[in-house]
Formats: sequence, structure tokens, C-alpha cells
Amino acid sequence: LGLLPPLPFCFVWQIAMIILFGVFIRYDEESDTHWVETKAHDNITSDIENDFYFRYPSFQDVHVMIFVGFGFLMTFLKRYSFGAVGFNFLIASFGLQWALLMQGWFHSLDPQTGKIFIGVESLINADFCVAGCLIAYGAVLGKVSPVQLLVMTLFGVTLFAVEEYIILNLLHARDAGGSMVIHTFGGYYGLTISWVLYRPNLHQSKRMQGSVYHSDIFAMIGTLFLWMFWPSFNSAITDHGDGQHRAVINTYLCLASTVLTTVAISSFSQKTGKLDMVHIQNSTLAGGVALGTAAEFMISPYGALIVGFLCGIISTMGYIFISPFLEKTLKIQDTCGIHNLHAMPGVIGGIVGAITAAAASESVYGKQGLINTFDFTGDFKDRTVLTQGGYQAAGMCVSIVFGVAGGAIVGSILKLPIWGDPADENCFDDEVYWEVREPATHHLLFTIQPLGGAIVFDLVSRDELQTTFEIYI
Amino acid sequence: LGLLPPLPFCFVWQIAMIILFGVFIRYDEESDTHWVETKAHDNITSDIENDFYFRYPSFQDVHVMIFVGFGFLMTFLKRYSFGAVGFNFLIASFGLQWALLMQGWFHSLDPQTGKIFIGVESLINADFCVAGCLIAYGAVLGKVSPVQLLVMTLFGVTLFAVEEYIILNLLHARDAGGSMVIHTFGGYYGLTISWVLYRPNLHQSKRMQGSVYHSDIFAMIGTLFLWMFWPSFNSAITDHGDGQHRAVINTYLCLASTVLTTVAISSFSQKTGKLDMVHIQNSTLAGGVALGTAAEFMISPYGALIVGFLCGIISTMGYIFISPFLEKTLKIQDTCGIHNLHAMPGVIGGIVGAITAAAASESVYGKQGLINTFDFTGDFKDRTVLTQGGYQAAGMCVSIVFGVAGGAIVGSILKLPIWGDPADENCFDDEVYWEVREPATHHLLFTIQPLGGAIVFDLVSRDELQTTFEIYI
Amino acid sequence: LGLLPPLPFCFVWQIAMIILFGVFIRYDEESDTHWVETKAHDNITSDIENDFYFRYPSFQDVHVMIFVGFGFLMTFLKRYSFGAVGFNFLIASFGLQWALLMQGWFHSLDPQTGKIFIGVESLINADFCVAGCLIAYGAVLGKVSPVQLLVMTLFGVTLFAVEEYIILNLLHARDAGGSMVIHTFGGYYGLTISWVLYRPNLHQSKRMQGSVYHSDIFAMIGTLFLWMFWPSFNSAITDHGDGQHRAVINTYLCLASTVLTTVAISSFSQKTGKLDMVHIQNSTLAGGVALGTAAEFMISPYGALIVGFLCGIISTMGYIFISPFLEKTLKIQDTCGIHNLHAMPGVIGGIVGAITAAAASESVYGKQGLINTFDFTGDFKDRTVLTQGGYQAAGMCVSIVFGVAGGAIVGSILKLPIWGDPADENCFDDEVYWEVREPATHHLLFTIQPLGGAIVFDLVSRDELQTTFEIYI
Repeated sequence: LGLLPPLPFCFVWQIAMIILFGVFIRYDEESDTHWVETKAHDNITSDIENDFYFRYPSFQDVHVMIFVGFGFLMTFLKRYSFGAVGFNFLIASFGLQWALLMQGWFHSLDPQTGKIFIGVESLINADFCVAGCLIAYGAVLGKVSPVQLLVMTLFGVTLFAVEEYIILNLLHARDAGGSMVIHTFGGYYGLTISWVLYRPNLHQSKRMQGSVYHSDIFAMIGTLFLWMFWPSFNSAITDHGDGQHRAVINTYLCLASTVLTTVAISSFSQKTGKLDMVHIQNSTLAGGVALGTAAEFMISPYGALIVGFLCGIISTMGYIFISPFLEKTLKIQDTCGIHNLHAMPGVIGGIVGAITAAAASESVYGKQGLINTFDFTGDFKDRTVLTQGGYQAAGMCVSIVFGVAGGAIVGSILKLPIWGDPADENCFDDEVYWEVREPATHHLLFTIQPLGGAIVFDLVSRDELQTTFEIYI
Repeated sequence: LGLLPPLPFCFVWQIAMIILFGVFIRYDEESDTHWVETKAHDNITSDIENDFYFRYPSFQDVHVMIFVGFGFLMTFLKRYSFGAVGFNFLIASFGLQWALLMQGWFHSLDPQTGKIFIGVESLINADFCVAGCLIAYGAVLGKVSPVQLLVMTLFGVTLFAVEEYIILNLLHARDAGGSMVIHTFGGYYGLTISWVLYRPNLHQSKRMQGSVYHSDIFAMIGTLFLWMFWPSFNSAITDHGDGQHRAVINTYLCLASTVLTTVAISSFSQKTGKLDMVHIQNSTLAGGVALGTAAEFMISPYGALIVGFLCGIISTMGYIFISPFLEKTLKIQDTCGIHNLHAMPGVIGGIVGAITAAAASESVYGKQGLINTFDFTGDFKDRTVLTQGGYQAAGMCVSIVFGVAGGAIVGSILKLPIWGDPADENCFDDEVYWEVREPATHHLLFTIQPLGGAIVFDLVSRDELQTTFEIYI
Repeated sequence: LGLLPPLPFCFVWQIAMIILFGVFIRYDEESDTHWVETKAHDNITSDIENDFYFRYPSFQDVHVMIFVGFGFLMTFLKRYSFGAVGFNFLIASFGLQWALLMQGWFHSLDPQTGKIFIGVESLINADFCVAGCLIAYGAVLGKVSPVQLLVMTLFGVTLFAVEEYIILNLLHARDAGGSMVIHTFGGYYGLTISWVLYRPNLHQSKRMQGSVYHSDIFAMIGTLFLWMFWPSFNSAITDHGDGQHRAVINTYLCLASTVLTTVAISSFSQKTGKLDMVHIQNSTLAGGVALGTAAEFMISPYGALIVGFLCGIISTMGYIFISPFLEKTLKIQDTCGIHNLHAMPGVIGGIVGAITAAAASESVYGKQGLINTFDFTGDFKDRTVLTQGGYQAAGMCVSIVFGVAGGAIVGSILKLPIWGDPADENCFDDEVYWEVREPATHHLLFTIQPLGGAIVFDLVSRDELQTTFEIYI
């Protein structure tokens, strides 16, 4: 496992977390026992006004997307399902703690007490932040060690918190579902790392790439939980009331539309008209990514359908044409095709968000509705929608820059020969990092000739030389 | 793939949806940015009063039932799991868009603006509508092409909206969980289509029927998510407050009771006393179907248990005795046994609903409680519970008629030789419509005789002739 | 299947349930149609104040934990997945009905009417009660018959209701997430039963113990749904408002911390530094167990991290060192390692709860906050936190005593030779109780020698003698 097994890393890090949480993190006023006093002070008549009841169902859906959604989506490889679901579990648990601190320092450090006060919205944001790193994991799936993943997550969360601060606070862009902040950043971060870590001899583990029948069905568990709960993702931190309600409707419609065009393009891509599970597992989700910014806007139901329509086409086309091009020409090995599922749709989402914001009007939103939706208050109370559109576009550029530059730096760090990454011929193989009780199956190809009552087996080819083998009977 | 691949169908349809949504569909007042004005106008003091917070958790549970529940329940076949979960995904995404329009036109078209205003309850109703078509899919699973499924869903949703309008609006029957509107209609719609599409030579794909060990476990994912979330299904659109609360309690109890009698009958059905996974996967759910109408009534906890008790018995008996009879005598090939899980329990549910309604009394419900529960307001304010019981029974007849007549017509359309349906010997096989990377396994049966140090294999039988094969080692 | 097949047991029991529910169980005022009068009487202005909206999302998460979480967690065995998920389904459905009665009689029997009034909180408590029995199932998984499981659940629920009454009502201990009441009791109950039922010849079914690749992935479905929804488990019945909010934050953090130390210890335990799926599947959950008592207290975020840190270490160490010791020395065969996942962490949770309670102060909690959190009202209004700490510790002892004594008695009953338990060589095998369509695979080990164009297979060893076998080609 190389020079740095996960043991000391996890231990030291977790102890650091305990210390930092002890210094900085406190319950916010809605999760503290003093809530009873807060209620009296603010004339809140019912506990149901606690933000918990507005956001907890959405939080749990997001939580499922992070751990089951992302985890199982990556189980499609025939022999890397432990790594997919297990390392996803590890780095998400690792990252969310660091995210609470980083996001707290940047967004909600109380200047008087020097403390970060957390509530259910903080947990959602921490899950969101982790999502960016899990997207990046998709590009390097099967090619890196767990320690490399932890390092990648450590820096990824840090970069995320900074770009998020610039985009949401300084530029005052809106991005509730994170088309830019999460998907564009996470996508380019992962792709750039994968580019730096390019393996010219990856074909040596070609036998382990691709899926088997059952692993494709496991992956559909991930796909469906992502697809079903994406409305919760895009609405989890939007405004109470109509903001959450509208974001759900838009995302629901957009995703339905994406499924139809994904199927259409997938069946078109094969001479036989057959469907490809890779497309169904991934491209059907692109609409959710692309509505991450605009879901809370008045994009209108048919607008959501149009975004989904285009994303199903572009994402599936990406799997058919762009991914092979990226690998051959640009030397980017993208295991899960995150370019098609996150990077491109994220950029589309940023553009859709900028256009929709620039096109917003008081006649559609209402005077107060416009102020609420774009938060034109405080320092930003005189901003026009056109200016807002410009800042949205600027936000997207920031997320790309952070993804590419951050990925280049972190990729260079991960290239150091100290992290215990697998050899080219052992990529996509769980046996490198996991105790696997049942050995992988290999194939012998025979010709078989009935000869009297017996059968003669003529060896045609085999994967690997060995003199002892088992037959399952 | 025949004359009509899904490509143009999906494309054209999705473009039509965009146009129709542009013309008709708008956000309702609770999901529009003008909500802030609605609140002021209606003296609503808190965003938590937005219907979103009453229904969104239930909506998400229903959404999981539609996509994971129905999808995975049908993965039980050894080699049709892609089709089960993938086509379920396709037709649900397709159907819900059409359902929003059809249900909108019939139930909520604003006469002044000519628009349909949608909110979270509309999304639930669209999912419900789609459920009817997914039930029908269960009868023809593995025997039709994706284009046939799309056509079946297109007409199914249309018929659904009409029968729903007749039952709920004209007859003013109550059917919150859809025993009649969803399950009875969907069940008979699918069974009739299957009857029209009868394949006398289906035995030619006998080797593909039935399950393997792992596919049965995948199917249990579907079973359990359906079972667990059925209380949300039956309460999703019931009255706020006690209405949703009571529907949950009733469905929870009814389903628990069903599990016990399903196990009892299943172990009784085998000479060895062994349990059959088919029964556990399906009949355990019958109680939820049968309480679809009465869940919101004061059926009382023991009443719910009785309904579940009977449904576990009847549904399991159905799998043992009725399904073989239907296939042999009536020529209805019902892949998933929807007659036992949806059609029969749906009819029971309609009867239970009619009886419970007719037996309702002011002493049990309270004066205002009775009015609220049966919505005895407006044109119906003078209706008696006995009359209501009669209309409930009439509603059930309407759902059967629509299912059978609609199924006969749609079945005839699907019988045209233009839809690319699979040959008899290729039924239940994913390889017809999907790129399958790992070929299906076949069986060779040998006798093996140690002969000195070597072994002689005597071929006893094999599924299929071939001269080259692979051994997994 | 022995002398007592499940058939009559399930039938008779379900009929008894119907009668008892008819006599005792009624809707509470929030699920009854008279809610409209209750609202008027209590000046409740909105239906959203119905307890349903505070607790239903958490209830559904708990429901998923019980049926999918526990069910799939136990599917890890290569050939006992039907039994894991199916019998879990059976005994949970069986137990929750009995739990509603037992808990009703002890906690909420109305003295005037002699009725038990149930609402959503009753359903959560019934699910909790069942959880204790499912934990116990983990210790005897694969070694008992379904009838034994039903008996075990029947007595388990009964014992649970009594110890819960003593701990929560008489001792007035707090235990919202059930570290003591659920996990400690359930753990020792199962371990003691397993000790009584010790099988010296269990090695005869050694070939069926352990997992295969796919069964480990199925088990991760259980692990993740338990892990993700544990915050809902620990907050489901805590106080409205800050109580639920805080319990969620604490559990979320604690579990994240547990994952890190579980991975660290797991990789440390193998010479190769590889991770073991058994640890990832189980020990990652120990933090949730250990925060069952203290989650609602002001343990503070870093306190939650510390508990998780320790539990990951202790639980994983348990799998490596303590489980083999228990089996060899104490003759406790613990199939799922519930000692490491429930019993030990439950005891830790009880201790953490007692210490945190004893250390509570008005300066941290606020005057009213302290009263609310520990419910220092009525007979207990003068109790000090130090006394409370003592009663918490006493509560933990009660749960251990009930687990061990109850397990000894019930184990003795289950030792009677009338229950149809499997023979030593048939343990962990679904074929004993289920119709399995696809037979289990066995292994033949050959040496293979190319000899001219043909191949000679030399038999080295095989699992089992048989003269006919199948080769998958």
C-alpha cells in the first residue's frame, strides 16, 4: 500500500478535527437548548418555525444522494464495487467535517465570539461541498489509492470553500443547486487531476474495465436515487416557501425530459438501435446538473423541459463522441465520464442561470418576488437583473478557473511516488486495497468436440496463465 | 428493432410536450414568486403553511415507489433486469409529463386564463397516474418492445385522466390512494392488453423465465421500498392534519398484517413447507392496494388489520391457483402476476371503501369530521353516507370498464406488426434491446467420471448447441 | 420444517392481534376526524401543528432502517440473503403489532376508557421496539428456524416493553435513541440466546459462512441506509424544535468520525494494510448506537466527534479480537458480530449519557432548557443533574439485566427440540426454508495440463461428492 497507509492519516486528521471543532463549532440558536428563549424573544409561536422542519426532509434526500447515489453510481465496474461504495463512504465522511470548518470560516464565522454556529443548513452545505469532491473521484475511479483520495478531498474542500465564497458572497451570484459551484468546479477539478495523472499503459488493466450484468444493476440504484432526489438537491437551501416549491417543480420536469432524449440518442448511437446502460445510468441525470442555478428562478415549466431536452442530447453525445476524443487526443482518462455528466452540464447550467437572471423582470417576478429571488438587499439592493446576469457568468468562469488550476496543483502533488497508487495492470481491481474473499473469475476459451461419449476441450485462449483453477458447478 | 425505434418517437413527443407546456402549464400561487403577495393577501403568517411542507416528504416517498419500487420489483427475471428498471424509468418519465397535461385539462384548467397551475400536489397526481401504467407493464414484462410500452403509456395516461375525472369529480367518489382509479384500472388495463397479445408459443423462451438467486434479492429492494412507503402513497393527497395522519396509521397496520398471512399461505402451499420468494415479493403488498380507498376513513386500526389479513390470503392464493388458471384457460399471460397484486386487491379496496363509506356515521366521525372526510360540500352537501357508498361502488365499476375496454382497444393497436416486439424465443431477454457486455450463461449438464488421474465429461444435455464456450475459473 | 411450521402460528397470532386491536387500539386525537374539534378547543390555528408534520419524515427514515437497513445488512452471507431480508421482514411486521399493544399497555393506556390511543409517535416506538429484536436476530442469523424467530420476537417485544417502562417511566432516564433500551438490551438478549443455543459442530456448515463479492455489496445497501438515517433514528422522538435539530447534528457528526477510525483500524489489522468489508459494513455504525442516549443533550459537536472516534476503534477492535475470543472461550457464536455493533457501543452510549447528564449545567442549557431536556417536571421537578446521571447509569444496568436474564429464559425455551431448527451442516443455507430456483454453486479444484491440443483435468479436491454437475458457459 506504499508509504502512506490510511491509518495514520485518518487518525491524525480525526484528532485535528476534534480539536478544531472544540475551538470553533457551536450549535446555532435553532439547535441550542436556548431556542426556548429565542422563540420568546422573536415572538415565534410554534416549534414548527424552526428551520429544521423546512429543510430536514431535503437534507436527508441530499444525504442519500451523497452516500448511496454517488456510491452506487460508481459500482458499475465489474470488480471495483468495494472501492466505489467504500471509498466514497470514506472520503465523504472525511470531507464533510472539513467542509463544516472551511465553509464556517468563510461564510458564518461570528466576528464577536470567533465561533461557527451550525444548524441543518450547514449540514446540507457540507454535503454539497463533499459532492464536488465525489464528482472528481468519478474521473480517477480505480486509478488512485485511498490516501490519494483523502488528499484530493482535503484540497478539494478547501478550494471549494474559497470559490464558493467568491461566487456567492463577493460576486453575489445565485447558485442554490450548484451548477457552477459544485458541478463545474468538481468536474474540471477531477478532469485536470486525471489529466496530470495520465497513465499511458492503462490498457494493461483493460480486462477489468467495463461492467458485468449485475454491476450495471447495482449502478442503477445509484442512478435512480440521484435522479429521484435531485429536486431536493436543487431546493435544499433555496428560500422558504415558493423558492423551495418552484425549484422542485423545475428540477422534476427537467429530469423527466432528459430521460426521453437520452434514450433517443442512445438508441440512435448503435447500428442495432440497442440502448447502452452507460447512457441510461449517467446522461439521464444531466438535466438536474444543468438546472442547479436556475431551478429557483422563474424559468417556467417549459423552460425546464427545454434545458432537460438539450442536456439529454449533449450528455449522451458526450459519451459517444467526446469521451473517446478526450482520452485519445487530450490524454484525459475519465473513468465515469464526469465530463459528460457534470462538467459540460454544469457549464450549461451556469449559462442558463446567467441568461435567466438577465431576462428576469418585475412583471414576471413581482417587485418583492424579484428582490427575494435574487436577494437584492443590503449592498446589492440597487443591482439590476442585467448586472446580475453578468455576475452569474463571471461566477461560472471562477468555478472553471478554480477547477482547472486547483486540479493542476493537486494533480502534481498526487503524482509524487509516495501515495501507494496501483500499478497499471492492477487498476480497477478491488483486490489491491480490499480483502476479497471470493477471487475474481477469469476466462478460458475452449473449443469443445464431442468424441464418442466424452468431450475434448481444445484451449483457444486464456486471460492469464495458471495451472490450478476452480470450476463453479 | 422493427419499424419504429424509440428515437423519433421520444424526440417528437418531447418537443410536443415543450410546446404544450409552454401554452398551458404555469406555477401555481404557492410555487410562484408572487407567493409573498398571496401570503399578505390571505393573512398567512408563515411560509410553513405552503402546501409544499405538507406534501413534499410524501411526494418523495411516492417518487421512490414509482422509480425504485416498481422498477426493482420487476428485476426478478434472471435476464430482464435492464428492461425492468430501464423501461420503467423511460415510461414513467414519459408518462408523468403527459399526465400533468391530461390531469390538468380535466381537473384544474383555469377557465379564465386557459392555463393549468401546478404545484407539489400536481406532481404527486402525475406520479399516481404513471403508477397505473407501470402496473400494466407488469403484465406484459419481457414480451413487448419499448415503443409498445410508450404507446401503452400514452393511451394509459389518457384513459386514466378520463376515468379519474368521472370517478372523483362526476361521481364524487373518494379514492385518495387509488384502489380503484390506479390499481383496478391499471390491473385490468394490463391484463386485457396481455390477453390480446397472447403468445401461444411463449414456452420457447421458457429458459429465460424465472429468477436466479441474485435477481430475487434485487427484486426485494423494490418490494421493500414499495412496502415501507405505501403509507405515504395512501396519505399523499388526503386532507391536511388528521387525514394524512390516519391514512398512514391504517396503511402501516394493514401491510404488517398482510405479511403474516402471506407467509402463512406461502409455507402452506409447498409440501415441504418452504417459502416462495414470488409470494414474499408481491403478496405482502396487497394490503396497501386494498386500503387505497378506505385509508383516510375511520376504518379503525383493527379494521385495517382485517383488510390486510384477507389480502395476504387472497393474493397468495392467487399466485398459487388463479394465475395458472388465467394462463391456461383464459390465455392471459401475466408475467408479474398483477392480477394478484393489483387487480383483485384493487377491487377488494373498492368494495371496502364503499362499505366503509356507507357505514360512516356522525357519532364516529363527528359532524364536521364527516363533512371533511367525504367532502360533503357544494353540490354534494346533502349527500348521505349511504348514497356515497353507492357512488363508491359505481366508481369501481367505472375503473373496471375503463381498464377492460381501454385494454382491448390499445391491445389491438399494439397487435399491429409494426412495433418491433421480440420473437417468442427472445422474450424475457435483455439482449434484444440492450447492449449487454457480459453474455448470458447457459448450462451444460455432464456426468463426470474419474478415470485414472484424469476426468471424463459425458455430455448429458445442454440448452443450446455451440462449439465454443467459456469456463469461469 | 419440524413440528411447528409458521402457518398456524402466523394465522392464530394475526387473529389474536385483530381481536386485541379491536378491544384496545383507537386513533389518538391528532389522527381522528375529531381533530377539527381539538384544534378549535386548543386554539390550534394550523394543521401543520399536528404532530404528524414534526415526526413523519423521521418515522419514514426509521422505517427504512428497520426493513431495508437491518434486512440488507444481514444479506452478507453468500447463501442466506433470502433468510436475512425475508425473515427480517416477517418478524418486524409481526413484532410491531405486538409492540403497539405492549407499549400501549405500559405507557399510554387511558385509565378512563381502557383504550390505547395511537399516533405517529406510537408507530416510531413500535419500530424502535422491533429494532431490539432484529439486533438479537443478528446473533443467531442462519442458525434458527422462522418459528424460533417468531418466538424470540414475541418474548423480546414483551421484555422490551417492561424494561422500557422501568427505565423511562420509573427511573425517568432519558434514552431517545435507545442506546440502553434498544441496543444494549437487544445486544445482550441476542448474545445470551446464542450462548444457550451453542452449536459445537457449527464448523460443519463452514462452507456457507462468509460472503461472496455480490453479497457484500448488497450488505452495503443496508449499511448505508442505516448510516444515513441514524440521525433520524436518534431524533425521531426527541423534543420538537431544538431537541430534534440538535440530535440530528450530533449523530451526523458522530457517525462521520466513526467512519474514519474504522477505516484506520481495519487497515491496521491486516499485514497487507487492506480493508475488510466486515468492518466497513458494521463498525461504521457504532457511533450512532453510542449516541443514542446523549444525542439530544448539549454534548457539543466536538463531544459527538470524540464518541464517534472511540466507537470506531472499539467496534473494529471487537471484530478483530473480541469476537474470536467470545466464540472460542465463552462459546458465543455471534453471526453478525452484534457484540461489536450493538452491545458494546450501547453500553458506551449509556455511560456517555450518564456522564453528560451529570455534567449538565444551567449555564450551558439555560434554566428552561435544562428542564425541557431532562423533563424535570411533575414528580421529577426537584431532581438534580447528578441524580439524573445516577438514574441514567441505573437504567443501563436494567437493560443489561433484562437482556441477559431474558435471553437465558427465552434461549432455554428455544432449545426445546420442537422448533424445526436447521441441522449443523445446513446452517446459513437458504434452501432449508426457501424454494431456491438456482442451486448453490460448489467448487471443484483441478490441475489442468495441456496435452497436445486437449486438456487433462486432474481432480485435486472438491467440496462435496456428486456425479452430475453443471458448467456455466
